[in-house]
Amino acid sequence: MKKKIVKPASISGFPEFTPGVQMVAVQQLDRIRKIFELHGFVPVETPVVERLEVLLAKGGDADKEMYVLQRLHAEDDSEASLGLHYDLTVPFARYVAQHFNELVFPFRRYQMQYCWRGERPQEGRFRQFFQCDVDVVAVDQLELSFDAEIPLVVYEALRALEIGDFDLRISNRKILQGYLEGLGVEKVQEVTRILDKLDKIGRDNVLRALAEQGLSQELGEKSLQIGAISTRDSSFVERVLGLGVRSSLLQQGLEELAAVLDTLNRSVGGGCLADLSVTRGFDYYTGTVYEARWREFPEVGSIAAGGRYDDLASSYTNTRVPGVGMSVGFSRIFAKLAAENRLPEHLPRCPTRVLVAWLDPAGPERAREIARQLRSRGVNTEVYHRPGKIVKQLKYADRKGIPFVLFDTDAQVKDLRSGEQYAVDLERWMP
Amino acid sequence: MKKKIVKPASISGFPEFTPGVQMVAVQQLDRIRKIFELHGFVPVETPVVERLEVLLAKGGDADKEMYVLQRLHAEDDSEASLGLHYDLTVPFARYVAQHFNELVFPFRRYQMQYCWRGERPQEGRFRQFFQCDVDVVAVDQLELSFDAEIPLVVYEALRALEIGDFDLRISNRKILQGYLEGLGVEKVQEVTRILDKLDKIGRDNVLRALAEQGLSQELGEKSLQIGAISTRDSSFVERVLGLGVRSSLLQQGLEELAAVLDTLNRSVGGGCLADLSVTRGFDYYTGTVYEARWREFPEVGSIAAGGRYDDLASSYTNTRVPGVGMSVGFSRIFAKLAAENRLPEHLPRCPTRVLVAWLDPAGPERAREIARQLRSRGVNTEVYHRPGKIVKQLKYADRKGIPFVLFDTDAQVKDLRSGEQYAVDLERWMP
Repeated sequence: MKKKIVKPASISGFPEFTPGVQMVAVQQLDRIRKIFELHGFVPVETPVVERLEVLLAKGGDADKEMYVLQRLHAEDDSEASLGLHYDLTVPFARYVAQHFNELVFPFRRYQMQYCWRGERPQEGRFRQFFQCDVDVVAVDQLELSFDAEIPLVVYEALRALEIGDFDLRISNRKILQGYLEGLGVEKVQEVTRILDKLDKIGRDNVLRALAEQGLSQELGEKSLQIGAISTRDSSFVERVLGLGVRSSLLQQGLEELAAVLDTLNRSVGGGCLADLSVTRGFDYYTGTVYEARWREFPEVGSIAAGGRYDDLASSYTNTRVPGVGMSVGFSRIFAKLAAENRLPEHLPRCPTRVLVAWLDPAGPERAREIARQLRSRGVNTEVYHRPGKIVKQLKYADRKGIPFVLFDTDAQVKDLRSGEQYAVDLERWMP
Repeated sequence: MKKKIVKPASISGFPEFTPGVQMVAVQQLDRIRKIFELHGFVPVETPVVERLEVLLAKGGDADKEMYVLQRLHAEDDSEASLGLHYDLTVPFARYVAQHFNELVFPFRRYQMQYCWRGERPQEGRFRQFFQCDVDVVAVDQLELSFDAEIPLVVYEALRALEIGDFDLRISNRKILQGYLEGLGVEKVQEVTRILDKLDKIGRDNVLRALAEQGLSQELGEKSLQIGAISTRDSSFVERVLGLGVRSSLLQQGLEELAAVLDTLNRSVGGGCLADLSVTRGFDYYTGTVYEARWREFPEVGSIAAGGRYDDLASSYTNTRVPGVGMSVGFSRIFAKLAAENRLPEHLPRCPTRVLVAWLDPAGPERAREIARQLRSRGVNTEVYHRPGKIVKQLKYADRKGIPFVLFDTDAQVKDLRSGEQYAVDLERWMP
C-alpha cells in the first residue's frame, strides 16, 4: 500500500510559534497574570463554546463572523447550537448571571483565553486571538473609582510586556452625548456613529454625512470640534466649556473624566490622557471609554480597549449589574513584537538553565545524580543523552540556548555566553 | 419592546468552575508546567484547529467524535475543512514535520491545552478536556533512557498535584507480542486486541473470543497467563521466563522493561511497577507503554498514559522520527479532586493577600498609598471601594477568602484566620 503523504502547513489566521518564541509568550502571559492578581482580580475561565442564543443575545455584527461546531458524523442538526466565543465579555455576562449567588460583589475578575472570529482567510487577520480581560461588576451601583482602577491595572500590564511607549486614551460617552444634546442635535446616536468614522473616511465625508442627517454646515463643524480636544491633565474641561455649549449630561461627563484622570495621574507617571475623540462604537458603553495605542506601531491599532457599561447581565436577569472593564489584545501585541524582533532579549527562549554533559565512560549515573541535585534546588536541568563527544554536547546546548554546561566528571561549568569555565561546588552552586 | 430573557446554563461536557476553584486549577497547572520545565521540556502550543486531512491522517475511530468548524453564515462549504483537535499528539506530529528544520533534536516538548471530542452529551463525559503532554522525539534513533525519563517527569507532575497514591504501571509491547509469537500464535494483532479487553468482558469471554481465532483452550489460557504478572522490581523477568516461552522479541522486551524500571526505581521511591497487562490499544505504540491509575479513585480510570512509537511523522515525511511520550489527563484528575472536596487546602482560593480597609473619612488616598507600597513588594492587594462600616469590609474580606485586613488609619492588621490584630511597619511588613 502506498503511503499517503500529507503536506504540513499553517492555517491562515491561526498563528503558531517556534518553541523559543512560545517560551517568551508563556512568560509574557505570566507577567500579565501577575499584574492582574497583584490588584486582587480573580481568575475566571469559561468553555470555548457558548450556546448560540447566548452568543447572539447582544446582537450586533458579531454573528456574521462566528464559528459554530458540528460533529463530523452527526446524524442530524440537533447539536448545531454551539459556537466558539468571539470575545470574553459575552461569556462573562452569562457566567455572572449563572453563578450570581456564588460571587462576591464588587466582583473583580480576569479572564485570559483565546477568542475566535470567522474572518475571511484572505484578509490575513487573526481568526484565533488571545485576549486578557479585566472587569469589575457590582449589583445596582458601581463606584466611579473603579473607572480609574481598571486602566491602572491595564497600564501596568502593558508596561510589564516591555512594549515601549503607548498612550492610554480616555474619554466619557456622556461628554459627546451631552455636548450634542446641548448643541440641539436630535439624532445623537446617528451623529455619534458618523463622528466615530472620522479617522476612516475623513473630515469632508463626515460633514457630508452629517448634512444628510439634517445638520447645518455650522452645526456639523461644531460637532467635530470637541473630538479635537486631547490633554494630559484636566485642562480639557476648560477647553470643552470654551466651546460654549452646556448641558447637565455634559457637565457630569466632564466631572467623571476629570476625576478618573486625576486619580490615574496620581498612580502613573504620564501615558494616560483625556482624548475626546475616543468613542469605542456606540451600543455598549455608557460612560468612561478607553483605548490604548502603541506609539511606535500605530498601524497595529488599538492594543487595549474597554469602558463602562450600565448593565452586563441584561440578557439574563432584571437585576442591574453595572461594570467597567478592559481587554488587552495579546495576540496583536505579541505577534508584532515577534515580527519586529522586539521580544525582550532577557527572557529565556529555553527553560533549561543547565545541561549536564555526560562524559563519564562508566555511565550516566553521575550526570543524573548531579541533575537531581540541581533540580532539588529548583534549577531547570537536563542530562545529555549520549556519552562522550564534548563538542557535540556543547553544540546541542548552544543551539537550544542553554546558558550553562556542567561536566559530570570534574564539576567544571562552562558559561556559554561568556566562554568562561570554572569549578563549582555541586552542593551549593546556583547558575 | 419586551426584553428577551435567556436562561444562563452549563453546557453538558464543558465544565466550568467558580473563581475559587479556578484559582486552584491555575496553580495546579503552574505546578505541572514547573515540573516539565525543571526537566528541560520546551513549550509548544498549536492552534485549536487542524485541517481535517491532518486529523484523519492517523485513521482509527477518532473521526467519529470530532468537531468541525462552520462559519455561521458561510456562503458555501469551502471552509468546512477545519476540526478541533481531539488530542495533542496529532497536532504535535504535524508541528514537528512542519517546523523540522527549526527544532533541536532530541526534541523535548511539553504541550498543555484543551482537546475536544464530540461525545454524545447524554453520556456525561467531557467534551472539552485539558491535557498535559510531554514527548521526546529524535531523528532515526531515540535512546532507551528516554523511556525512563518520561515517566519520571510525569510521576513528579502527578506528585506535585497532591493527589495521594497512584500506580504508574509500565509494560513493553514487545513482551506480549514476542510471547505470543513464541507460543506459536499466528494472529498476534487480533489476539492482543482480545486480551486487552480482559477488564471489560472478563476471562470467559476472552477465552471464547480467542477460540474463535482458532486458539486451543490450552493456548488461550497460556496467552492469558502473562497479563497476570506484575512486580515492583525486575523479578517479572524470571516470572515470564518461568512460563517456558522463548523468542528474541520477548527477550528484547524483557531487557528493555527491566532497564527502564531499574532506572526509574533509582529516582523514585516506589509507585512505579512492571504490569504486563498494560497494552494501551494496539496500532500506535511499539515498545514501552505506560498507564497511571489512582489508588483511591480507580473508577476514574487512567489518569496518565502513553508509550513509545516508532515514527511520529510518518504521515508527513519519510524521515523516521521515533519518540516516547505521556499525557496527563488534567481535567479528569482536577474534576475528581474538586468533586470529592480534595483540592489542596493550602492553595489560596483568592489571589488577594491583603485588603486595605478604607476608614479614613478624608478620602481613599491613604489606603491607596498603602496598597501601592504593598504591591511594590509583590503583595497582592486591593482597597475597599467605600469608606466606613468596618464590619462590612471585614465581611467582604472573609467571604472572598482574603487572609489579612489592614486598616488605613492606624496601620493595624487583622489576621482573619487567627483573629489576631497587631500593628505593623508599613515600610517592611510582609503578610
